[in-house]
Amino acid sequence: MADSKATLSLLIFLALLSFFLPTLSSLRPPRLSQSPKHARRHLGTSSRSNYSGSLGAPQYRYETRYFDQNIDHFSFSDLPKFRQRYLINTEHWSGPDRAGPIFFYCGNEGDIEWFAANTGFVWEIAPRFRAMIVFPEHRYYGESMPYGSWEEAYRNRTTLAHLTAEQALADFSVLITELKRNLSAEACPVVLFGGSYGGMLASWMRLKYPHIAIGALAASAPILQFEDLVPPETFYDIVSNDFRRESVSCFNTIKDSWDVIGSEGQKENGLSYLTETFRFCKKLKSAGDLSDWLDSAYSYLAMADYPYPADFLMPMPGNPIKEVCRRIDNCPDGTGILQRIFEGVSVYYNYTGTVDCFELDDDPHGMDGWNWQACTEMVMPSATSRNSMFPAYSYNYTDYEEWCLENYHIKPRPTWITTEFGGHGFKHALKTFGSNIIFSNGLLDPWSGGSVLEDVSESIVALVTEEGAHHIDLRPSTAEDPDWLVEQREAEIKLIQGWLDDYFERRTVFDM
Amino acid sequence: MADSKATLSLLIFLALLSFFLPTLSSLRPPRLSQSPKHARRHLGTSSRSNYSGSLGAPQYRYETRYFDQNIDHFSFSDLPKFRQRYLINTEHWSGPDRAGPIFFYCGNEGDIEWFAANTGFVWEIAPRFRAMIVFPEHRYYGESMPYGSWEEAYRNRTTLAHLTAEQALADFSVLITELKRNLSAEACPVVLFGGSYGGMLASWMRLKYPHIAIGALAASAPILQFEDLVPPETFYDIVSNDFRRESVSCFNTIKDSWDVIGSEGQKENGLSYLTETFRFCKKLKSAGDLSDWLDSAYSYLAMADYPYPADFLMPMPGNPIKEVCRRIDNCPDGTGILQRIFEGVSVYYNYTGTVDCFELDDDPHGMDGWNWQACTEMVMPSATSRNSMFPAYSYNYTDYEEWCLENYHIKPRPTWITTEFGGHGFKHALKTFGSNIIFSNGLLDPWSGGSVLEDVSESIVALVTEEGAHHIDLRPSTAEDPDWLVEQREAEIKLIQGWLDDYFERRTVFDM
Repeated sequence: MADSKATLSLLIFLALLSFFLPTLSSLRPPRLSQSPKHARRHLGTSSRSNYSGSLGAPQYRYETRYFDQNIDHFSFSDLPKFRQRYLINTEHWSGPDRAGPIFFYCGNEGDIEWFAANTGFVWEIAPRFRAMIVFPEHRYYGESMPYGSWEEAYRNRTTLAHLTAEQALADFSVLITELKRNLSAEACPVVLFGGSYGGMLASWMRLKYPHIAIGALAASAPILQFEDLVPPETFYDIVSNDFRRESVSCFNTIKDSWDVIGSEGQKENGLSYLTETFRFCKKLKSAGDLSDWLDSAYSYLAMADYPYPADFLMPMPGNPIKEVCRRIDNCPDGTGILQRIFEGVSVYYNYTGTVDCFELDDDPHGMDGWNWQACTEMVMPSATSRNSMFPAYSYNYTDYEEWCLENYHIKPRPTWITTEFGGHGFKHALKTFGSNIIFSNGLLDPWSGGSVLEDVSESIVALVTEEGAHHIDLRPSTAEDPDWLVEQREAEIKLIQGWLDDYFERRTVFDM
Repeated sequence: MADSKATLSLLIFLALLSFFLPTLSSLRPPRLSQSPKHARRHLGTSSRSNYSGSLGAPQYRYETRYFDQNIDHFSFSDLPKFRQRYLINTEHWSGPDRAGPIFFYCGNEGDIEWFAANTGFVWEIAPRFRAMIVFPEHRYYGESMPYGSWEEAYRNRTTLAHLTAEQALADFSVLITELKRNLSAEACPVVLFGGSYGGMLASWMRLKYPHIAIGALAASAPILQFEDLVPPETFYDIVSNDFRRESVSCFNTIKDSWDVIGSEGQKENGLSYLTETFRFCKKLKSAGDLSDWLDSAYSYLAMADYPYPADFLMPMPGNPIKEVCRRIDNCPDGTGILQRIFEGVSVYYNYTGTVDCFELDDDPHGMDGWNWQACTEMVMPSATSRNSMFPAYSYNYTDYEEWCLENYHIKPRPTWITTEFGGHGFKHALKTFGSNIIFSNGLLDPWSGGSVLEDVSESIVALVTEEGAHHIDLRPSTAEDPDWLVEQREAEIKLIQGWLDDYFERRTVFDM
């Protein structure tokens, strides 16, 4: 059994770090000793540098522009402005006179070029809507750094203070308003898109700024993963189920492995043995570090359990969990449990086979954007249940808070998000007072458990796919897309068209 | 003709200062050399002290409590908490088990006890709804001072930075949420009330926090008095019309008086003559100061043109404009124009006849809460038209900004309010995406021109009365209430009842 301290560290770590998201901006530990190109995919560390392309990802055409934003929209402290980066494409736009739509992607916690490259859906459908495309970058990520640089922006608590979702939404709203004003495009309807945290932003923006955008496609947006709105075990239960559905023996091997790792770590030379078995470049400091590393892999495998090969998070085969389990299950008889685990997890960490040895993060407490957000507003409780394949762990807010106080000298506000954006009685409020939101989710995605999975009203719609993973609908279409995915995207297009039709119909009634 | 510099100063002054509101928190100049009790009515100067009762105003029972609020809800700077005061009455409340409603008044720019005393409507209707009553104080007013005291809170730009409408709305939302949690009253529906700036807050809160409150009565809330949403002349046109409808000769006397004052001010000993005629305690520094003083009186007379005697702003007779015009028109033949003006304006400044001499504010540039708000977010353009009884003046944002830079070292954000809360295409957005707001207005009220005067949808309703002044519907009922006022309040009660019925009906459908 892994010692309880390691387990605690594991879970707090997961709550704070691996909690997000498609971008892995939060994923510090699994930094690999591989080529710089691959390393850049981990936006948590690469938010300081530019994205320079992705294997096989389509290259979209856009102009890169910058917009001066207030660091603080809600107060009037004497702070300098900062340059927000945004990508823009107007080549298909029908223009202001025809009230051409504006498709606006709510940038999340990472370099915006990476999101643009991985959000093919918006690029592919814009021409048929004759829509402008805008991809604004989230403040404190990529190039959009207050105080001029990553080093200055991430210097301390005071400089990081304004890295919040509300400020980001205000950035988007100001940018849209000014952009429209400059283009005399005030009458042009705005449709929001976003995935994961960006999907949360899109749906929240629809609630908070209904006058700015007429609708939102919120893909894989776990807006209910706060306080006690959903059970804290939901994430790891779904990860576990993703493995169990492929193979019960695979699930059991993983479930049994934690104790083996824990007791190995207690033995003399045990850490050396684990280090060797899992081919780490440097000697492990604790068995818990290995557990974290494995846990991250399983979680991201579940998020990226796409039906075709992709290199969204890491280069992986189609149905990667099936492949992990195939390797775990199909080892020659007599193969030890740890060797099986290593073979399996290599699907995630080393599918291309180019990695010689793996590195863990050296500085787990370094400043990181998503960690900051998790220690301020984004307190998303996490635990494991006995039915999962993970070590048992229950959520303890006090530990969470202590971790944040110790590492960031900041006390989280765990009830703020639901106060600001709603939560308790959310469906009731949404049904009565909201409209025009699509919550799309794939049930393989561990974040789906914290999202909206049932229609709330005629115009607040849940699109759920049994076989989908983390916002697969936003990805570029491929020749291998299964029918359910093609149909899901068609449904989204139809709903968006409906919002626009509605908008143009009402517009004729009102004096704009 | 008053010289253009004086006129400029007049209008900038008005835009910033007399712009608000029922509370006169912004009304610095007309500080009278009268009893302290009367002086306290001017909340702009009395926000440091407690309200201690009002002549003839009903005394309502409540408990005074305090709640620790974050100074900054939207960022995580290391700031101390502050104590927000709120008044609470639960004696008629049916309690959490019966989901008893919570009537929540959005405190505006002044001492909350004063608003509680002048908002009889809420106190009078709460028992029939078995509702709890809460009157929270707006941050930076009354006792609710960040940094512990008025002196510290108003020290400089940095300490004042967080005096904004968004922060105030977040205060309200956090307070409601915590109050409900403490009382296990999560299922209790909240209805918002507010008048003037408080009415703006109530309607904005309904838009921004639909999950927190089910509806809002926004009385005399000029939410469209921003940018170019309504003509900037609307305020002074309505003031002028209020006088013209009583007497054309009165209107003309006032209209002619500005030139007389202006040329008198140019004469040798002219300022002494004006000082004497208008009985100022100290010698006037410019004719413009007198014009400001008169302008304030006319504006507030129009706001408080109630059909019965009241001392909401100052002790005044019923239909005070009628009385002003009676005095102006009925002077003995041969009475000079300035003497007539003095007789008229005394209805406002000295109806009780106890004032020996009048004082102007000595420090027009001192820190004042509403001035700060006007120089940051609340940029409400103001001008006069040729048809008004005021000197011609057109709105010039550059002058406005310069004034703020000079006096507060702050640059306003004139387009922020419409970005944050909507404005352009407001009706369209409201109809599609909002619900459950009453905009009540009396057409005698100069602020009515900047409010919503037509129904927007079935549940966003305009209640307009021809003879009403500034949020008269919120005032305590009196034996002299005209029928139209009784009917207006009945309509409001019926709409509020409808929101509650709706809420309880929907509640049975959803899992709360």
